[in-house]
Amino acid sequence: MSHKYVYMFKEGDASMRNLLGGKGANLAEMTNMGIPVPNGFIVTTEACTHYNSSGKVLSDDIKKQIDGCIAQLEAGTGKKFGDASNPLLVSVRSGARASMPGMMDTVLNLGISDAAAKALAKSAGESFAYDSYRRFIMMFADVVIGVSKHSFEHSLDEYKEKKGYASDENMTADDWKAIVDIFKKIYRDDQGKDFPTDAKEQLYNAIIAVFESWDNERAFIYRRKHDIPYEWGTAVNVQEMVFGNMGQTSGSGVLFTRDQVTGENRMFGEFLMNAQGEDVVAGVRTANPIEELESKNPKAYKELMDIADRLERHYKFAQDMEMTIENEKLYILQTRDAKSIGPVAMLQICMDMINEGIMTKEEAIKRVDPRSLDQLLHPVFDDAELKAAKQIGKALAASPGAAAGRVYFTAADAAAANERGERVILVRLETSPDDILGMEVSQGILTARGGMTSHAAVVARGYGTPCICGCEDIKFGKNDFTIGGETIKEGDYISLNGSTGIIYKGDIKTVDPEIGGNFATFMSWVDAVPGKMGVRTNADSPKDAAKALEFGAQGIGLTRTEHMFFDADRIPKMRKMILADTEAERRAALDELLPFQKKDFAGIYEVMQDRPVTIRLLDPPLHEFMPTKDEDFASLAKDMGKTPQQVKDRAESLHELNPMMGHRGCRLAVSYPEIAEMQTRAIIEAAIEVKKAKGYDIKPEIMIPLVGDVKETRFVRDIIEKKAAELVAAAGVKLEYLIGTMIEIPRACLIADDIAGVAEFFSFGTNDLTQMTYGLSRDDAGRILKDYIDNNIYEGDPTARLDQTGVGELMKIAIKKGRGKNPKLKIGICGEHGGEPSSIGFCHKVGLDYVSCSPFRVPIARLAAAQSALAGEKFD
Amino acid sequence: MSHKYVYMFKEGDASMRNLLGGKGANLAEMTNMGIPVPNGFIVTTEACTHYNSSGKVLSDDIKKQIDGCIAQLEAGTGKKFGDASNPLLVSVRSGARASMPGMMDTVLNLGISDAAAKALAKSAGESFAYDSYRRFIMMFADVVIGVSKHSFEHSLDEYKEKKGYASDENMTADDWKAIVDIFKKIYRDDQGKDFPTDAKEQLYNAIIAVFESWDNERAFIYRRKHDIPYEWGTAVNVQEMVFGNMGQTSGSGVLFTRDQVTGENRMFGEFLMNAQGEDVVAGVRTANPIEELESKNPKAYKELMDIADRLERHYKFAQDMEMTIENEKLYILQTRDAKSIGPVAMLQICMDMINEGIMTKEEAIKRVDPRSLDQLLHPVFDDAELKAAKQIGKALAASPGAAAGRVYFTAADAAAANERGERVILVRLETSPDDILGMEVSQGILTARGGMTSHAAVVARGYGTPCICGCEDIKFGKNDFTIGGETIKEGDYISLNGSTGIIYKGDIKTVDPEIGGNFATFMSWVDAVPGKMGVRTNADSPKDAAKALEFGAQGIGLTRTEHMFFDADRIPKMRKMILADTEAERRAALDELLPFQKKDFAGIYEVMQDRPVTIRLLDPPLHEFMPTKDEDFASLAKDMGKTPQQVKDRAESLHELNPMMGHRGCRLAVSYPEIAEMQTRAIIEAAIEVKKAKGYDIKPEIMIPLVGDVKETRFVRDIIEKKAAELVAAAGVKLEYLIGTMIEIPRACLIADDIAGVAEFFSFGTNDLTQMTYGLSRDDAGRILKDYIDNNIYEGDPTARLDQTGVGELMKIAIKKGRGKNPKLKIGICGEHGGEPSSIGFCHKVGLDYVSCSPFRVPIARLAAAQSALAGEKFD
Repeated sequence: MSHKYVYMFKEGDASMRNLLGGKGANLAEMTNMGIPVPNGFIVTTEACTHYNSSGKVLSDDIKKQIDGCIAQLEAGTGKKFGDASNPLLVSVRSGARASMPGMMDTVLNLGISDAAAKALAKSAGESFAYDSYRRFIMMFADVVIGVSKHSFEHSLDEYKEKKGYASDENMTADDWKAIVDIFKKIYRDDQGKDFPTDAKEQLYNAIIAVFESWDNERAFIYRRKHDIPYEWGTAVNVQEMVFGNMGQTSGSGVLFTRDQVTGENRMFGEFLMNAQGEDVVAGVRTANPIEELESKNPKAYKELMDIADRLERHYKFAQDMEMTIENEKLYILQTRDAKSIGPVAMLQICMDMINEGIMTKEEAIKRVDPRSLDQLLHPVFDDAELKAAKQIGKALAASPGAAAGRVYFTAADAAAANERGERVILVRLETSPDDILGMEVSQGILTARGGMTSHAAVVARGYGTPCICGCEDIKFGKNDFTIGGETIKEGDYISLNGSTGIIYKGDIKTVDPEIGGNFATFMSWVDAVPGKMGVRTNADSPKDAAKALEFGAQGIGLTRTEHMFFDADRIPKMRKMILADTEAERRAALDELLPFQKKDFAGIYEVMQDRPVTIRLLDPPLHEFMPTKDEDFASLAKDMGKTPQQVKDRAESLHELNPMMGHRGCRLAVSYPEIAEMQTRAIIEAAIEVKKAKGYDIKPEIMIPLVGDVKETRFVRDIIEKKAAELVAAAGVKLEYLIGTMIEIPRACLIADDIAGVAEFFSFGTNDLTQMTYGLSRDDAGRILKDYIDNNIYEGDPTARLDQTGVGELMKIAIKKGRGKNPKLKIGICGEHGGEPSSIGFCHKVGLDYVSCSPFRVPIARLAAAQSALAGEKFD
Repeated sequence: MSHKYVYMFKEGDASMRNLLGGKGANLAEMTNMGIPVPNGFIVTTEACTHYNSSGKVLSDDIKKQIDGCIAQLEAGTGKKFGDASNPLLVSVRSGARASMPGMMDTVLNLGISDAAAKALAKSAGESFAYDSYRRFIMMFADVVIGVSKHSFEHSLDEYKEKKGYASDENMTADDWKAIVDIFKKIYRDDQGKDFPTDAKEQLYNAIIAVFESWDNERAFIYRRKHDIPYEWGTAVNVQEMVFGNMGQTSGSGVLFTRDQVTGENRMFGEFLMNAQGEDVVAGVRTANPIEELESKNPKAYKELMDIADRLERHYKFAQDMEMTIENEKLYILQTRDAKSIGPVAMLQICMDMINEGIMTKEEAIKRVDPRSLDQLLHPVFDDAELKAAKQIGKALAASPGAAAGRVYFTAADAAAANERGERVILVRLETSPDDILGMEVSQGILTARGGMTSHAAVVARGYGTPCICGCEDIKFGKNDFTIGGETIKEGDYISLNGSTGIIYKGDIKTVDPEIGGNFATFMSWVDAVPGKMGVRTNADSPKDAAKALEFGAQGIGLTRTEHMFFDADRIPKMRKMILADTEAERRAALDELLPFQKKDFAGIYEVMQDRPVTIRLLDPPLHEFMPTKDEDFASLAKDMGKTPQQVKDRAESLHELNPMMGHRGCRLAVSYPEIAEMQTRAIIEAAIEVKKAKGYDIKPEIMIPLVGDVKETRFVRDIIEKKAAELVAAAGVKLEYLIGTMIEIPRACLIADDIAGVAEFFSFGTNDLTQMTYGLSRDDAGRILKDYIDNNIYEGDPTARLDQTGVGELMKIAIKKGRGKNPKLKIGICGEHGGEPSSIGFCHKVGLDYVSCSPFRVPIARLAAAQSALAGEKFD
């Protein structure tokens, strides 16, 4: 028997998501729940994989299985696919394992032809029939064949203009017939052959087009953003058409079972009578709030509410549904767990659903996307500046948050401005998937068209980017737009409040948000999850440390001491130190730096009090501190009693071919032990002083970077221990401290047992470890990563998301060897990955004690760590 | 009971070398063989390690054990240590596990004082007593206390000059007494206190000085050169003094049991009557050939010959001995396996000893240092040029081989010239250990003083550097020297034939040596060792390949295709290819390169015939091919129809921050598949053509560099396979080929199982693998390595000698994973380490199939591989 590649809805259920795709699994589930779903079948994700791996051919076997299911649809309806008298029309939709909204292509009304249209006209009216037909021609031509839809749209606009029609509603049956002819001609002109009339051929090609759309650029971008593996593939849903555009007793709608913006427990949605679902989503006509359906069709409304409630309780979460009413009869075309819910709404929904007995706290913790919390932590407008700001417009508050930036009108310009370091507000008539790259880098998005479920709104909420939609007051000029009497040119500042929908002129200062309410409650549950890793922060200043504490950090996992030397009053001293010709000169310069460094550490200790503080010794190659401007060389030379050329020559001598793998990290301490001595002195003296003054139990953790050898580690450890012992003895107070190492060189992982003999803790520096393990410099990876992602070799940037296969293997080796030697060894991570949820999951599984990340990522890390603990997986 | 740190000679034997040091173990062995050895004891290497690890203090326990042994010496001789009437005098000598000639310090006549000297004068004559005393004062002051011996030597010279003495032989007892007083004054002036008279204090301090001398710079340099770990430490031999300087019935000598230069079976040595051993070695007086001893003391001569024969048979190798005759009685002070034997002599000795039944072939293979073979392979003078050359002098042929270079007179100048890329001949009055760094970089060494066993001769033979010694005709000027009527200035060229002792004016061309005779016989045994790894070569041209074949290579393990593009007629095309703006332009440029590349490969195939040829696809970052000069940019721009600035800008855009980890290796093939296609075409087409023309069974091995991911490997593999299949099909001949990968990125090792699924062979690129594993760029490592070696963190450069702990661990992981997936996977190595003996040993243990190295290293690798096979060790 051949492998089963096609399932009728009634053969599936929600648990078969990997095989049937999310949409298909839910259609199957609903079918079996008795929800009114138009009948249909699913071509599986395995069929997609089979298609991709067998030379992009839809096998005869799969075609045969499809034909069998079509026969079942025909039997159920009495209609015939491709028939001239009673044609069966179907929709063809993609449905991947993970929802990919707006990313995949859809074909409606498939099965129509001249003959079928004529039959349809008899049963449902000519206007409807030819409207459906022209829609199909355009969609099929665009999506399946690749004829640009522009020429179709253009000719329709021209036609209406010539006729003096204001909108599609003025179009008569004859008009649609004429359009069908025009569209067929466009197709013929473009393709050199007639529009295909064979329904089966249409169907196979549409299915292939869905499979191919898995390979399109938008899909790649979306997958990259959402970490969806290419291998998953997509399923295809083929479903009997129901028509929302069969006149005023029909309609279509999209709805969320909870308020998307606030999370409030109220149905939230839009519908249009006499329209197909696409019309609602596209925002072509302004839709009606779902509540208004009650007056138009109370029975359908009541049924819809009941179904929504059943589905919520069934799936234990807010649902995102599509419905169609065909001649007063309600059909549900789709349900899925609501996505792209901002964290404010998400937390509210969770709180409510826990109270309503729909979900548990644990389910809530598992449900919230850690990355989404980011949005709660970002600034809001400064009240004072907000009051003084000029309000220039108001529209739909589509994605909450405050944003200010310079206006750009295309995705490309926005991306370019972002590369120049500008904050950007993208202003568009409406957005499309082609704008994704520009949307991704924008502080905020403003559109003139489209509603709360428009592309811009959905995508912006997904990104947590403030967004205002449907601002129809906007009048676009050549390189500017006008609103509220103000003309805003490209590059001018505006500010958006995505929570209120208000648009302001100028660049309004933003301030940090209050953290409390649902967030605080939720995070208290998160922190109570047993077996959760600790979460520390990377902080280089008392200010960062305070911010991180507010966000729930339990300590500092990384203080980079070098950042402290870039201040204007310190950098000249640092440079003098670096350029010193003798140890004596270097010591003199270090003596000048000591008070600054000590003050920094004291400030951090005062904020962190009894919490652990890990301080890393100087790490970067010294040439990073060198001036680039002539005047800086001149003043430095004067200060040092040398000529500018001498100073330049010395700076030049620090140049390295591969600085990433050069004279940096603990190698500096080996060459210049006096630097490590000064830093040890600053760390220990500051700790002693703050301990004496405030009584905190300070226990500094001194971290040696870039170790790769046990003797090297011991060498630096000896410097620290000797100096610290002197200082502690002199101060006459008891002060404990730990000495540990970064693990960021592959060799360190391989000899971690030896290093664990001279280190009390490890902290994985997975930024460098990833670069060295891949032999790939992040600074030079741009072109390479692009080509690798384009060629489907990498799914994304391994410095953003931990490579669990390669780098992870090294981490496992290091942990096994390290703990084998020293079972009490404390192990953490302080690279970028420490704040990235999937990487945090890995860290939990390998048994790390803590992760450390930037302050704004601390809540994300806390949640990800809790989710990992709940998942309960550990490597042995 | 305390640990035993001191052994009497009779308590030890030759097997205790690690504990007693080489010299001590042999003294113990000889004592127990009944050879006449002055009695003594050994302070062990463990005592040295104990001293170094316990704050550099000689423990009371060790002192007590030493005292006990001194008491035994006293009991045996009836003398008393530190006694005024019958003083026991001892020598204190270092003796490390591995012999370190000239590196460690020695103190003679220890135990002497004013009173002891007086007693000694009574029993052995005043002149002898005070000569011994002054020797002791100077040695002790210099070696133990650190008072420069220069002031002692200077005052002795002054004294002799004042007296009008030509040499030390004119000195009377009173003169020596006066000198003793002068020396004591020098000591007092320098140290602010009197010369120490307590014998025990002298002894402890002398032992400490030997331990400390393990830490001196010369010892570090020697250990670095000879891969001796710091941890081994040195033992100290304390031995009753016997005196060769007790008048004309006494004498000292050093000898080798075989001819050091030719290997001939004849005693080879020198002696001086009325002299201590140091006088012979230092070459202060010209010594007599050992044969002349027969007439002076036939009994001692006969005894010496007998002992030499016994020792050779006992140790199964030629011996390097020191002897002293005191009042006609022969003492053997030392024996050890002869070191610093050039390979010509070494092979002769082995051949003879096998014939004499002293050693087996297998023992011979184990005995020869693979690195020494290097010397056999180096050029000799071109006959024609040699005939025309002007001979300007002749002296001792101290180390064989031909060398030509510019003359420098100090080690520092020689080293500086070497850094400038000059070939250097170091010309010195005599050399000392301080000259080591200069000697190391010289092509040849010429000295005016000293014999065949002088420092210069011994060291030069060890290095395989041609050396001519004892050329007393040389007259030094201010910055030149005169010989044979010619004045040679600093920077002038001379040529040395170290095999004949002849010095030539000018720069004589050298030619490759004939390989045959003993070498060929020996290498045939080497290749017959069962279980030996294959040895291939790295060769980029037919010429290299032919040379490597001559040296016994079994195939090519690495052809670097990039080197082929640097020729003047190719580089412009390469540059055009790189700077092309479009794929079409790039393909056009590649089409121009194809014929060159194809011709190169065809030439190599023709040389290698049926042997395997591994060709690596383009590897380096493209900017390495860019011009640096303005005129090159200009001509390139003209050729490409662009402005020079455009070309410069494009070249600039190739700049990378860390090119080592940038856009190179297979990453180039991902970005520009057309490059890999062109190279595949050249490889396959050339193979097809040569196969057709010559009938060789050519099976190219195409190697993908820098892989770190399985999909990336598959991507490039697909390009190669597709193109190769096309070409093979079109040619209509059967051609097999392999596709494999370099393993040079840490991640490749960690996912080697996956990669083995798409590769038929692996070749470790341990150059890059070492750099990435250490996170250390070889280009930038100069300063770092210096500091690490100076601080005793690294023993040497890990890119020269494979790091078995870290990099080796990654290799083990890769082999285990790779063979686990594909048991037939062929695995080799093609980095620098492939020609380094200790690394080759590791490669054998981990189960590699072959090593590949540069042509001149092939014989070294063959021998090292055979030795590894004989050692028979394998990791599981």
